[in-house]
Amino acid sequence: MSPEPRLLEVRKNVLKQNDVVARALRIRFHAAGVFVVSLVSSPGSGKTAFLEKTLTMLRSHYRVAALVGDLATENDAARLARSQAPVKQIITGTLCHLEAAMVQNAVEEEGWNLGNLDFLFIENVGNLVCPSSYDLGEDLRVVLLSVTEGEDKPLKYPTIFNSADVAIVTKSDLADAVEFDWEATQRNIQAVRPGMRVFQLSAKTGDGMQEFFGFLAQQLAESRTVAAV
Amino acid sequence: MSPEPRLLEVRKNVLKQNDVVARALRIRFHAAGVFVVSLVSSPGSGKTAFLEKTLTMLRSHYRVAALVGDLATENDAARLARSQAPVKQIITGTLCHLEAAMVQNAVEEEGWNLGNLDFLFIENVGNLVCPSSYDLGEDLRVVLLSVTEGEDKPLKYPTIFNSADVAIVTKSDLADAVEFDWEATQRNIQAVRPGMRVFQLSAKTGDGMQEFFGFLAQQLAESRTVAAV
Repeated sequence: MSPEPRLLEVRKNVLKQNDVVARALRIRFHAAGVFVVSLVSSPGSGKTAFLEKTLTMLRSHYRVAALVGDLATENDAARLARSQAPVKQIITGTLCHLEAAMVQNAVEEEGWNLGNLDFLFIENVGNLVCPSSYDLGEDLRVVLLSVTEGEDKPLKYPTIFNSADVAIVTKSDLADAVEFDWEATQRNIQAVRPGMRVFQLSAKTGDGMQEFFGFLAQQLAESRTVAAV
Repeated sequence: MSPEPRLLEVRKNVLKQNDVVARALRIRFHAAGVFVVSLVSSPGSGKTAFLEKTLTMLRSHYRVAALVGDLATENDAARLARSQAPVKQIITGTLCHLEAAMVQNAVEEEGWNLGNLDFLFIENVGNLVCPSSYDLGEDLRVVLLSVTEGEDKPLKYPTIFNSADVAIVTKSDLADAVEFDWEATQRNIQAVRPGMRVFQLSAKTGDGMQEFFGFLAQQLAESRTVAAV
């Protein structure tokens, strides 16, 4: 009686098709020499504030652009455009995640010359579940977690932490106000993703941002060294 | 080439089946005289803190119980059990929402006599997208939004706000620290759900909780009056 097996089968086909598109995207990104960073988190973790600060601060040294996914509104693209970097909104309608084909379409619609970019950021829809299974062709997937969300989120949403490469704890300026427990958070992240690198920062005050930028610069340099070999 | 129409069709069947179970649950809840409140929000909005405080404070006047959904861990049930109220954890695995059948199974497994309850609370999985389409047989659906998440969430996740009956703005104790804009939030909620009643409270300090309890008591009384007619 349960229709679930059929639903699972159809989902698998959707995922398989997504992987094909994502693989093609990744090859294209590498050929162009652009390093692609995707951001996933729950709604309200501060992805957009972090990305606005990142675009603004990186712009003087690197060529940057961003794609931003939401179910509705162009609000985030408008916010990010204040950074003066090229930004494109992707509206997903009722879908709780971006798919590789949406990224591909957005890049084509904008006519961006990927060879002219150092970093392309992709902000996913705010969701700690759906985006985990969809490869977007990115080089680095970053999961963000704000100090106000509670230390147990990695244990409750292990799949998304497992699908990510690094974690960022955001809104560190509010850590004291919410009695944030940094050690418990570290312990929970390491429990679901042993060895995961974790950054702690505040987009509002700028604290900790430079450390993350140093990491990004290193990642970009390494990816281009590998490509050149 | 796109498998989406088929996926949508299968999803519709899942939803239809869910509606049948939800309808039966609602009839059963009404016959037992228990008022059922479900909570939806993004991860980290404070659903569990709010529910713990609610169970603790309501317990002296009402017979209360709670079901709590999560992808993984029994953490929330353990937290809620501190209220001394009967609590049951529902683990959803990879599913980003509760379904009516899970509620039905949980009630049966626990062997709760629904006629002995005034309020049954159901805390959904933390997600602003998936839970919106699944009727759980509840009388009242409450969407929670914390002051730290940003004022634009109703515009970005209109469907979940549309599927809810009332909204609660949580963590009001942090409103000043994050320069929360109450009027913008109200405007955005009313834009997607005109006339929606909105409560503002802090489970930490207790501010605003009594106003919400007054509303619940009134809802319970009204539902029993209707049932008796």
